Amino acid sequence: MVKIGIIGVGTVGEAVIKNLEKNKEIIKARAGKEIKVVKGVVKNLNKKRDINIPLTTNYKEVTQDPEIDIVVELIGGVDKAYEIVKDALLNNKAVVTANKALLAYHRFELQKIAKTPFEYEASVAGGIPIIKALRDGLSANHILEIKGIINGTCNYILTEMKKGRNYQEVLKEAQEKGYAEANPTFDVGGFDAAHKLLILASIAYNIDAKPEDILIEGIENINLTDIEFAKEFGYEIKLLGIAKKVKNQIELRVHPTLIKKEEMISKVEGVMNAISVKGDVVGETMYYGPGAGGNPTASAVISDIIEIVRGNNSPMLGYKIPLEIENLSLKPIEEIESKYYLRIAVNDKIGVLEKIAHILASNNISIASFLQKPKEKYVKLLFSTHKCKEKEIKKAIKEIEKQEFVIKPINYIRIEE
Amino acid sequence: MVKIGIIGVGTVGEAVIKNLEKNKEIIKARAGKEIKVVKGVVKNLNKKRDINIPLTTNYKEVTQDPEIDIVVELIGGVDKAYEIVKDALLNNKAVVTANKALLAYHRFELQKIAKTPFEYEASVAGGIPIIKALRDGLSANHILEIKGIINGTCNYILTEMKKGRNYQEVLKEAQEKGYAEANPTFDVGGFDAAHKLLILASIAYNIDAKPEDILIEGIENINLTDIEFAKEFGYEIKLLGIAKKVKNQIELRVHPTLIKKEEMISKVEGVMNAISVKGDVVGETMYYGPGAGGNPTASAVISDIIEIVRGNNSPMLGYKIPLEIENLSLKPIEEIESKYYLRIAVNDKIGVLEKIAHILASNNISIASFLQKPKEKYVKLLFSTHKCKEKEIKKAIKEIEKQEFVIKPINYIRIEE
Repeated sequence: MVKIGIIGVGTVGEAVIKNLEKNKEIIKARAGKEIKVVKGVVKNLNKKRDINIPLTTNYKEVTQDPEIDIVVELIGGVDKAYEIVKDALLNNKAVVTANKALLAYHRFELQKIAKTPFEYEASVAGGIPIIKALRDGLSANHILEIKGIINGTCNYILTEMKKGRNYQEVLKEAQEKGYAEANPTFDVGGFDAAHKLLILASIAYNIDAKPEDILIEGIENINLTDIEFAKEFGYEIKLLGIAKKVKNQIELRVHPTLIKKEEMISKVEGVMNAISVKGDVVGETMYYGPGAGGNPTASAVISDIIEIVRGNNSPMLGYKIPLEIENLSLKPIEEIESKYYLRIAVNDKIGVLEKIAHILASNNISIASFLQKPKEKYVKLLFSTHKCKEKEIKKAIKEIEKQEFVIKPINYIRIEE
Repeated sequence: MVKIGIIGVGTVGEAVIKNLEKNKEIIKARAGKEIKVVKGVVKNLNKKRDINIPLTTNYKEVTQDPEIDIVVELIGGVDKAYEIVKDALLNNKAVVTANKALLAYHRFELQKIAKTPFEYEASVAGGIPIIKALRDGLSANHILEIKGIINGTCNYILTEMKKGRNYQEVLKEAQEKGYAEANPTFDVGGFDAAHKLLILASIAYNIDAKPEDILIEGIENINLTDIEFAKEFGYEIKLLGIAKKVKNQIELRVHPTLIKKEEMISKVEGVMNAISVKGDVVGETMYYGPGAGGNPTASAVISDIIEIVRGNNSPMLGYKIPLEIENLSLKPIEEIESKYYLRIAVNDKIGVLEKIAHILASNNISIASFLQKPKEKYVKLLFSTHKCKEKEIKKAIKEIEKQEFVIKPINYIRIEE
């Protein structure tokens, strides 16, 4: 029998315990051994829970219990979780975690410490087995690009806005439905997606980077004009986590993105997640499913436990030997190239278009399409550009915003094609 | 160094050899060891090939070579491949195969013989790592249902027909483009998809069945009227491989299917493949990508080799211990329940509709929707039904076809909702 200790018995922890029990026969057949949760660690022993395992408040009763084979960490957050997981690894426990924040900051240190199996399928995109797909199923490939819808809250909001509903109204509804937190910044600001992107990127490229190092923008400024523009020009707007190899540099970025509606990932709606991966051998594959929730996350946690019980032990981040030959580095944010869509609100005066066009041209930015929309009190100018560098567009935007005819901060969305 | 022998050096074999060479640095980093193809087995030594490895015509020089660690079988077909793979396993070689026909017939015998790792990711859906997803990533789940677009030829033809082109014209084009064979029956008749479905079903349900045991229908009778009906009622027509658990019975079937256009799998177009899997814990996940071709298939073959070199060894069909508790059996074809769409060509006479409605009702079949389309010389009646049994609809169809006003064999398509 394989004995499990679970640290953090909330929604996911309870779902892990219940599904291990509910499906115990088939799990035993697949794993080859019985799997039993023998202890749980909680903050509050008095909280009413719908499970029946011995509980403690001291995590060391799990990480240092010689009876326990696998420690499942489900408390979330960075520092305390790092302390716990490190202690488990140093006590030769196999570890399973669903903790994206922990991995966004400490995956490379943990890889060094881990002499035992370390699995983390649930940390990215909930129930979708994307870690195994990328690390094991696509291991023959140089990964050219990853594009992920890895935040269900944002995808839900953007899907609903397509029906003509405004951002604030939909966000409020998402909060009521439990899709978004009371403080939604972590989701709508792109930070949650960034954590997940960093994990995927370390498997694809063996690259270490922290959330602070990469480009992260949220969906807070998307409005219905943008949605209409997208419709008119054949795009969908999605918050994407993008990892891309450009020569020997890796671009890592999270931002709202205009993508052609024919692309498979454009067709993903509501709270669902999907990750498109382009490999140099396989071409494009995509993985779709529920990215959050107790049961989907438990599905991933339990599959990790079964892998460990089976004796499988893929290298944590996918590399048995450090990959030095490629010498990849993180591309500086200001050097990232993209096409852009710009929304500029101006007073309707003679010479406005000419002036904006001049500023764009003098910053090396060429215009791909242009649309002018009259509003009641002002005019909206919508541009799309050809490829230019982050630093060029930012400089141009600053210059345009200084013009007296510009009446609001400029909004922009990157275009991926 | 790990030494590979490849039996069958055609399109896929060459792609395996070339990509192992092209990506050797990253593959070595991921696998932990250098991987080298040291011998190939071919039928014709004189055929010009774009690779540089020693070749032989005698497979035993690979299966019985003490130097070789992993045998990769890529000859296709059943009997000879079975002989070869068996010999490799009995000589304690690990085996990787892309051979769906071999597995459709012999997967359970091979599982018994194999004391060494046996991998077959490439046998279903080419480059999509669906075997690993189902066997490893979703191992916590009872699989409720699998729906797969697992034949690219059929999906290409059906996608093109949506543009108003007829079946024969598109099939001819598919043959010219190399998507369909000169004799297309294996693809358009559903047999290729059936082989793949049987493999997936054995992982999901540990169920043994042969192609002869299951319901297989092809796309040959789909016409533009059906395409129009689908559009009008919000469906897409896809050739699906379906495995479904209904109580303690497993339905296995391949047939053209009307599915709601909102479903993610309905959005898969052209030669691409996708497999939707519903698990009792995770809900629905879907896997999308190229289902055929030298490079995508090589991606899967090489990922299998890397898994073996890493020392991972999931149980071949996903079960370490036989799963007896569930006592699942194959549902007899005539007992399978489905909704149907019927296309009936009749002479325009008084009482026709009444007569057909009477026959349906007397066979326990209730009508869900009805559409009448006048043609030049006759009338097309399009029905959709509520759920009924295979034997009921077949009996009703026979009775209706006997009526003198019916001028052609009746066509039908099952509806999945």
